[in-house]
Amino acid sequence: MSACPASFRPSPALDAAVIAREAFAASIFDALRADSVDGPGVTRTSYMADEQRAHDRFAELARGLGLAVSVDAAGNLAARFAGSRPDLPAWITGSHLDSVHVGGNFDGAAGVIAGLVAIAAMIEAGIRPERDIVLMAFRAEESSTWFVGRHGGHLGSRAALGSLWEGELDSAIHVATGRSLRAMITEAGFDADRIEAGPPILNPADYAGYIEVHIEQGPILENRAIPIGIVSGIRGAYRARNAKALGAYSHSGAVPHEYRQDAVFAMADLVMALDGEWARRRAAGEDLVVTVGKFATEADRHSLTKVPGQVDFALDIRSQSRETLDGMEAFLRQKARTIEAERGVALTLDPFDRSSPSLMAPELVAALQAGADGLPIPYLTMASGGGHDAQDFADAGIPAAMIFVRNDRGSHNPDEAMEIADFMQATRVLANVLWAVAGAG
Amino acid sequence: MSACPASFRPSPALDAAVIAREAFAASIFDALRADSVDGPGVTRTSYMADEQRAHDRFAELARGLGLAVSVDAAGNLAARFAGSRPDLPAWITGSHLDSVHVGGNFDGAAGVIAGLVAIAAMIEAGIRPERDIVLMAFRAEESSTWFVGRHGGHLGSRAALGSLWEGELDSAIHVATGRSLRAMITEAGFDADRIEAGPPILNPADYAGYIEVHIEQGPILENRAIPIGIVSGIRGAYRARNAKALGAYSHSGAVPHEYRQDAVFAMADLVMALDGEWARRRAAGEDLVVTVGKFATEADRHSLTKVPGQVDFALDIRSQSRETLDGMEAFLRQKARTIEAERGVALTLDPFDRSSPSLMAPELVAALQAGADGLPIPYLTMASGGGHDAQDFADAGIPAAMIFVRNDRGSHNPDEAMEIADFMQATRVLANVLWAVAGAG
Repeated sequence: MSACPASFRPSPALDAAVIAREAFAASIFDALRADSVDGPGVTRTSYMADEQRAHDRFAELARGLGLAVSVDAAGNLAARFAGSRPDLPAWITGSHLDSVHVGGNFDGAAGVIAGLVAIAAMIEAGIRPERDIVLMAFRAEESSTWFVGRHGGHLGSRAALGSLWEGELDSAIHVATGRSLRAMITEAGFDADRIEAGPPILNPADYAGYIEVHIEQGPILENRAIPIGIVSGIRGAYRARNAKALGAYSHSGAVPHEYRQDAVFAMADLVMALDGEWARRRAAGEDLVVTVGKFATEADRHSLTKVPGQVDFALDIRSQSRETLDGMEAFLRQKARTIEAERGVALTLDPFDRSSPSLMAPELVAALQAGADGLPIPYLTMASGGGHDAQDFADAGIPAAMIFVRNDRGSHNPDEAMEIADFMQATRVLANVLWAVAGAG
Repeated sequence: MSACPASFRPSPALDAAVIAREAFAASIFDALRADSVDGPGVTRTSYMADEQRAHDRFAELARGLGLAVSVDAAGNLAARFAGSRPDLPAWITGSHLDSVHVGGNFDGAAGVIAGLVAIAAMIEAGIRPERDIVLMAFRAEESSTWFVGRHGGHLGSRAALGSLWEGELDSAIHVATGRSLRAMITEAGFDADRIEAGPPILNPADYAGYIEVHIEQGPILENRAIPIGIVSGIRGAYRARNAKALGAYSHSGAVPHEYRQDAVFAMADLVMALDGEWARRRAAGEDLVVTVGKFATEADRHSLTKVPGQVDFALDIRSQSRETLDGMEAFLRQKARTIEAERGVALTLDPFDRSSPSLMAPELVAALQAGADGLPIPYLTMASGGGHDAQDFADAGIPAAMIFVRNDRGSHNPDEAMEIADFMQATRVLANVLWAVAGAG
């Protein structure tokens, strides 16, 4: 990336042009919602027609701004705003256009609209950076919703970055069709063979960095009354997706304590052990969240009058620190062995997924902070708890950073409540920082 | 009941006649199974055709022994072996003929067959007691399987004893038909109006006592290598059938600890509190079992990546001591309030069912012990964890007792494994004690 001063004056003309685009931005959100409305929310399914409609709309909008539009082998959309020095590495901004099932309209789309508005404002302000700025709309970021089987998530951006695992094109299975990622890409008209053959579609040497606007998925900005966040890093996640506690069913009234193999008591014991360890690490200042999102006795066998013989559960442990994640995994495994011995219940945690934390590029974080300070717009520097396409750029060696937009009531549900005023604050920072790093004149 | 010596000599002729009936008993078990086989187990549905087939078979067998057969207003079968003094209160023995869905062949049926064999043996041995002995086969003991809605279980015996609750004929709803108990009784050809109008079909003044043979539903006799149990009391059950923990769904990665309302952590906290209190009371010698048979996050909303906002659970606390049950309920409610305050999760325990413990008649327990000692047959005096028709007799003021038969692998499943040799030991005790208490000569 370009060197960037620790503070800088924003471009008043550019900033005015961004602010003037508020109605334009709102109209795109509305049109996207209308294209994909599904009951109280929206559904834009990875690699299916409702996602494609959103891509078609952005291609049309980008062409309307005079940008060169292309679609890569994974179906990701790229709209290039040509700079004066096409020989220099370019900047990328964007996010994804798919949503979860009956999700909100802002998760993903906000980042693509912010990038489009930033470029539109530069054009309107009559300014042209040295470096190209490429607006990207990724496919299939919501892969943990739309794909099952063995896969690492964020399939669209990882396909473009050459980061898919060996065999992942075949082991990721779409929930709506039961077909592989390879089949979904091929049937949507893209080129799975090109992805597999390499080299990466996005070559790190060709890009200076990546900046993504995204709604916050937690309540921190809302609770602190701050409109935007600047992300310092994306938490890694250690996960047991399909874990089991296996005891034995028996009669709830007739079987005394010493003969029980109670899967619920064993699991409650494990959850409370995690609760205690989490408290200990929080008190020590460690970054950590622990969630047992699924905990279910068997619907077709459990009963008021049976000692439960099985619990299916899912465990998600996240931290910005690899050391914390490794420490929690060791604690979990040791405690599981103890409980197995004490309670006669087998605890199966594997397969166990480990995605490492991704650090945002410190110089890019500093640039975003300087941009917000210069406008000025209040911000909070914070961790991202959710995964984002930005982490795949960081993992591929392309400097990456993110701007969060305050969003009441979480994401992945129809109640997402991002205010357009907050979105515009994030877009002002994005536009001014892109202008600064892409070479202002 | 008649006074009964603390020990007595069994009748060698009667005992020999019982022992000679082993093949007869086995053939009835086989015929019952053949009438109701359902995959790996048997199904005899309360108030439906498969239960009726079992009643028809027993009516035929009882008539074959020359007994007077009648069916009461609730459809319960009574086969009367007339004694020499019809003016004296009679004895009842028996159990139920319905099973759970794909259940075992022995739960319930063993008690009816034992009674039939005991009477057949008396007839064969040419002995006639003073008092009538009535063999009864009850309907709908497995009501917690076959009926939903507001009801108190054991609907057949409670109907005969005049113990149904106000409105229970209409609030108990059959799971297979969606129809009320009243409709089920009427459509099966019996007389719900008679039950409702009273007086009780079984008038306590007319009966000296009730003895029921039943398979053990737990592993205690199996683990201690003892063929039969003599039941000292039936545990009461305090139950939350449809309890809920209500927190709030949020993002598993993005929401820090202080903003979570995690229903799974709250419930795990409650379960571990119960675990600790149970251990404390066990150590103090109290009779107690605690079961959380259902513990389920919502299948259509839970996710690896969501803090769980709801847990549905069921809680079953049983003890022979009313004081222990009341103490556990108080502990549970106090702890629930603490957890609600600490974790921002509402814990709803009501409606909360309380069925009191039923003590078996001490003099009848002593008679069974004396009978087993006299034969001699090894036995264990023990609590019944499961509910049985015997408790409804005890609750109605008719002295009641039970003999358990060792049974590996629990009840309510196709794997019930009662040995016919153990069943015969229980039947020997039943026959000799009935002979003693009904007036041996």
